[in-house]
Amino acid sequence: MRQALVFDIVGVTAVIVGSTVCAISVADKRTAIHRSELPSGYRDWRLISVAHEEGNLNDIRAILGNDVAIAAFRAGKLPLPDGAIIARLAWSHVSSAENDRAFGRAQSFVAGTPTNVQFMAKDSRKYASTGGWEFAQFTGGKFVAIAAQGCLACHLPAKTRDYVFTSYSP
Amino acid sequence: MRQALVFDIVGVTAVIVGSTVCAISVADKRTAIHRSELPSGYRDWRLISVAHEEGNLNDIRAILGNDVAIAAFRAGKLPLPDGAIIARLAWSHVSSAENDRAFGRAQSFVAGTPTNVQFMAKDSRKYASTGGWEFAQFTGGKFVAIAAQGCLACHLPAKTRDYVFTSYSP
Repeated sequence: MRQALVFDIVGVTAVIVGSTVCAISVADKRTAIHRSELPSGYRDWRLISVAHEEGNLNDIRAILGNDVAIAAFRAGKLPLPDGAIIARLAWSHVSSAENDRAFGRAQSFVAGTPTNVQFMAKDSRKYASTGGWEFAQFTGGKFVAIAAQGCLACHLPAKTRDYVFTSYSP
Repeated sequence: MRQALVFDIVGVTAVIVGSTVCAISVADKRTAIHRSELPSGYRDWRLISVAHEEGNLNDIRAILGNDVAIAAFRAGKLPLPDGAIIARLAWSHVSSAENDRAFGRAQSFVAGTPTNVQFMAKDSRKYASTGGWEFAQFTGGKFVAIAAQGCLACHLPAKTRDYVFTSYSP
């Protein structure tokens, strides 16, 4: 009997189900990123790292992981196991006059308006054609159509690290 | 019988104990930030926001909160209740050549080496002389002596927000 790994978008549990028929049924409903709805639990996930993009993006970022992802990052486990989901949150990068006054010079930037949230969700069989990853973006809480192959193309330089750029920051 | 609020540095629970004697005993051992040891649980706390400091600091930051702090931030509750602990992690702000290649231009910065971790822990009675907050800094996992009054002086511009600069980023 073939087993399938089913993961929950809220990132709490990874469930092994023993029936292929059942697995497909459950997977269709629960795995992957629901494209019509921003996953409700991701904002409680733990921190993997932070980043800052200049240029047109001009944002500051946090990269969070569900329990499966965090455990793998901390163990240095690659490739990441099925069920791992990474959320990249970004906000506009804005100067803080209040913080500048506290520091006595213009140097402080904080998170402003949210820009978008991107997800990578690992299911090595379902998304075999894109490195085992599903990619999704939400802007203003709404799913934005993206080309997974396009996402993967950008992530190719990190192929040896399972297409994930971010490293865990202790 | 007077009750005392005891909070755990790992941020999991807030415990009301009914005996003053017991409370003092437990509080001495468990409340506040243990000055000899970096709290082991803070890295699992949830994200409040992120920030970036230029200048001599040249760091990128994550601000995490224990359960009491996160609940208060999300509810917009000020002042923060006793038991709230905020952790400010910082890492060196380093450019990422790998990310730059993916974006096609020099624009990417990521978290490098950890610099230090600072904590604010709320106990309105124990730390009444410093706005109800204990302040602590750890560098390389070791406690670094700091003057709480000095910390408070820098945080004074945020007095109307209970001396906390950071706002919650959704």
